[in-house]
Amino acid sequence: MDKYIKFLKDQKVTAVYTTGTNGEGPSLTVDERKAVLELWIERAKGKFVIIAQTGGCNQREAIELSKHAGQVGVDAFACMVPSFFKAKTEEAVVQFLEPIAAAAPNTPFYYYDINFLTGVYLNTRKILELGKSRIPNLRGAKFSCPEMSGLFDSTLADDNMQIMCGSDMFLAMLALGVEVPVVYGHYSKLFNQLQKAFKQGDMKTARKIQAIFSSLSDINTKYGGGIGVIKAITKCFGVNLGQPRLPELPFPDNQLEDLKTDLKNLGVFDELL
Amino acid sequence: MDKYIKFLKDQKVTAVYTTGTNGEGPSLTVDERKAVLELWIERAKGKFVIIAQTGGCNQREAIELSKHAGQVGVDAFACMVPSFFKAKTEEAVVQFLEPIAAAAPNTPFYYYDINFLTGVYLNTRKILELGKSRIPNLRGAKFSCPEMSGLFDSTLADDNMQIMCGSDMFLAMLALGVEVPVVYGHYSKLFNQLQKAFKQGDMKTARKIQAIFSSLSDINTKYGGGIGVIKAITKCFGVNLGQPRLPELPFPDNQLEDLKTDLKNLGVFDELL
Amino acid sequence: MDKYIKFLKDQKVTAVYTTGTNGEGPSLTVDERKAVLELWIERAKGKFVIIAQTGGCNQREAIELSKHAGQVGVDAFACMVPSFFKAKTEEAVVQFLEPIAAAAPNTPFYYYDINFLTGVYLNTRKILELGKSRIPNLRGAKFSCPEMSGLFDSTLADDNMQIMCGSDMFLAMLALGVEVPVVYGHYSKLFNQLQKAFKQGDMKTARKIQAIFSSLSDINTKYGGGIGVIKAITKCFGVNLGQPRLPELPFPDNQLEDLKTDLKNLGVFDELL
Amino acid sequence: MDKYIKFLKDQKVTAVYTTGTNGEGPSLTVDERKAVLELWIERAKGKFVIIAQTGGCNQREAIELSKHAGQVGVDAFACMVPSFFKAKTEEAVVQFLEPIAAAAPNTPFYYYDINFLTGVYLNTRKILELGKSRIPNLRGAKFSCPEMSGLFDSTLADDNMQIMCGSDMFLAMLALGVEVPVVYGHYSKLFNQLQKAFKQGDMKTARKIQAIFSSLSDINTKYGGGIGVIKAITKCFGVNLGQPRLPELPFPDNQLEDLKTDLKNLGVFDELL
Repeated sequence: MDKYIKFLKDQKVTAVYTTGTNGEGPSLTVDERKAVLELWIERAKGKFVIIAQTGGCNQREAIELSKHAGQVGVDAFACMVPSFFKAKTEEAVVQFLEPIAAAAPNTPFYYYDINFLTGVYLNTRKILELGKSRIPNLRGAKFSCPEMSGLFDSTLADDNMQIMCGSDMFLAMLALGVEVPVVYGHYSKLFNQLQKAFKQGDMKTARKIQAIFSSLSDINTKYGGGIGVIKAITKCFGVNLGQPRLPELPFPDNQLEDLKTDLKNLGVFDELL
Repeated sequence: MDKYIKFLKDQKVTAVYTTGTNGEGPSLTVDERKAVLELWIERAKGKFVIIAQTGGCNQREAIELSKHAGQVGVDAFACMVPSFFKAKTEEAVVQFLEPIAAAAPNTPFYYYDINFLTGVYLNTRKILELGKSRIPNLRGAKFSCPEMSGLFDSTLADDNMQIMCGSDMFLAMLALGVEVPVVYGHYSKLFNQLQKAFKQGDMKTARKIQAIFSSLSDINTKYGGGIGVIKAITKCFGVNLGQPRLPELPFPDNQLEDLKTDLKNLGVFDELL
Repeated sequence: MDKYIKFLKDQKVTAVYTTGTNGEGPSLTVDERKAVLELWIERAKGKFVIIAQTGGCNQREAIELSKHAGQVGVDAFACMVPSFFKAKTEEAVVQFLEPIAAAAPNTPFYYYDINFLTGVYLNTRKILELGKSRIPNLRGAKFSCPEMSGLFDSTLADDNMQIMCGSDMFLAMLALGVEVPVVYGHYSKLFNQLQKAFKQGDMKTARKIQAIFSSLSDINTKYGGGIGVIKAITKCFGVNLGQPRLPELPFPDNQLEDLKTDLKNLGVFDELL
Repeated sequence: MDKYIKFLKDQKVTAVYTTGTNGEGPSLTVDERKAVLELWIERAKGKFVIIAQTGGCNQREAIELSKHAGQVGVDAFACMVPSFFKAKTEEAVVQFLEPIAAAAPNTPFYYYDINFLTGVYLNTRKILELGKSRIPNLRGAKFSCPEMSGLFDSTLADDNMQIMCGSDMFLAMLALGVEVPVVYGHYSKLFNQLQKAFKQGDMKTARKIQAIFSSLSDINTKYGGGIGVIKAITKCFGVNLGQPRLPELPFPDNQLEDLKTDLKNLGVFDELL
């Protein structure tokens, strides 16, 4: 853990998002999730912005986790909707979120939209607009859906709301004015270089770095996708996060060298600027 | 509860499936699910075959619930796969199920396939074939998917395995040799009449009853689908099961009379044979 | 061609469906489709019931093909909806079909529903109910969708309408009262045996034959699916129908022996009753 | 027609894309498509870059249309894959396109990817890479898919290939270096303003204009989507393009005033810079 925190620091990460998708929140029990969050708070409070993801299960557990997150002092919390019983309307999402957000009423709250995994394809902008008056601590959304149009649209909900984004189209995001992308820890340095190039108007370098991110997606696909590959990539950066929980399968040991070579060829370990 | 058990008896129900989809298992906490099961055991043990559904969350909780189900003495238990992290291969499903089935090794175990809600579209027959030698208490599957071809195919996995079915194409199932359909409590009487007609070779009556089941689907769709409608229909049969948990929305009170009229016009409250 | 007709006769086929999906209608030009149909009429008129599929392209061409089908004297014709511009409502389907059916007003007309290829998922029963009064020669539907519940539901539209079915769940269909399945030419003999067993109440044999049909689906999948495999299977029965049109890929020659062995092991070349 | 051409000129349109999706290519017969193209050539040759879309039907007709397009002297042509028989691999797409591109070997050719309508979800970049050596006149792709990551990825195929884009995330495209968006004629002026703001680094104005494009999508959805709405919007700009072909439904006359008001409130008729 300490090694991981040092690594994130080195990568110039400024915020962590705990027990989300890559943190496998929905595969952990309530007690495990509380323990993970407490560890982050203990070791990293003040060093990073800490955001807890409290959804992925039923509403009662999400309420319990949100209350806990508020008590231990996270900087913000976010919640997804359940993926088995799927909310059919934006109104149902807001009704579902209301008591969850209210469980830590003084902590900023975000709606976590990851439609391709939850199977809930609704309008994020409308959810924010409906929620604005009913969820006082609602501050925006973490938008991890592939549709760029939905991302930009969600930024139009309200000037005071903030959209964090989990996609890898960082350069497009910067242009669209999404200021807070959420990047895998190990790519944070690379992203900071992209951001710098964009701000300097050096679009050629910016596109070059964006091309690396796109190739990283291809590598991910090549090795079968899923949490197993992500953990293996982190391992290539020198941090061992262990194996994923079933039904996600572990990354095969005998492919690790190939993966490392692919990453090296892409130049992700190099300084680019 | 006692009223519901009496009602099920009157409807000639022979088995109950607890904390499955209609029992909203995934919307309950672990403790709530244990309590629901214990209540069923206390009131209905020996009167019905009691099958506990222990999935819908993460693997650890499914193991805990399965162990509990074995200890309180269910007749069988079944488990679905998670809907957020989706198993990508039949092998991953079997790896996921192994320790869950092993948590109650002397109790018959079934794989619960409900693909349109979990988003996991895999081959049930292959899962049973792979699992046969690795899960000693595996006895078959509860197949609640819309594809009739997949249902029949799954019956071919092994002669000693049993396929329970959650679809409403009962007449087709009977022809295909699926012997143990799982029917909503309130339709059980109607189903028994269908079965009787089929056994007597009275296909005209059998098709007439099947047509009623199909129309019931239409009514369900007409009122928006979901758990709210199912609870409202049960209410029309005289048993109040309360409101569904969010994100499922409650059935609007002012439509209850319309629903009752639709059901009456369909003849579901009449004796048919 | 003559050899194929003799083969179909030997297989006890009673009807042919020209330029449908397996006849690759949508991959042929209007002139080619007319020529194929004229050939069938010339060689097989009176020997088989001949049904022309006139859809798969734009409405004007469907009208032209339907007019032609009526003029050359088909027994019936059927039409699917376009797969690029997708009809969004049942009303749009009926408006689309009206002038097509009217192009051969004295010939029985069927709506051809093959939702998984057209991408148009609408309610077949509702289309028949809407069309009943507006399309005088509408006689039913050819239902080639995987959902068995939709199949049965469509039989409830009108007592005078007929549902032909393109699925392979033949035994289920017989039970549900669908009287006219549409079977691949080479499986017709097998289907006749299934029908005979069902009528005699010999459900054990019926299920055994149905199991063969299900295994045939698996073989199809094993070799990659598509029109190429279907043509290769027909070739194993001794009739060479040539190669499919692109974008369907041809079946690789070096796998033909394996396919033949798989079919032999399944017993499809044997007499079963 | 002349009025439409003048209108496009006024809107500062520089290129036209004939018989594509909005030109309803797949709903026209081969002869109609040739006639439409000849009219464009006659009236607009030299005024606009004219690109003919020759796909949407079977391969033979696409070859015929491509040959014709070359003969009448289009500046470029593009072709989509069929939507009924769906290409399953990138290799199948390239095999399908080869003879089509070869029908006008001296004219620049583009692959037209519109996955959400054809149902063919393949990797555009891989198609371009595979096609590079086998299709000498291949110059790039028209990418009309919603996935921004696929758009950027396709720009990485080859430095000499050009990606035209049909999405409405124009600002994101500009940042990603996609230089040739394909815009509805009536929005061309608006787009030019967006481009100007972007080049001047005035991101605030650029985002404001992008927000108008996003709101236009919402208006499209509000009125039911489809070709009918697009024709109605063009009508609000003063150009009557008639009714769409079935199965697309016409826009209801009594909603035209509402639509006009919505567009006016959005400011699309105003000068913005």
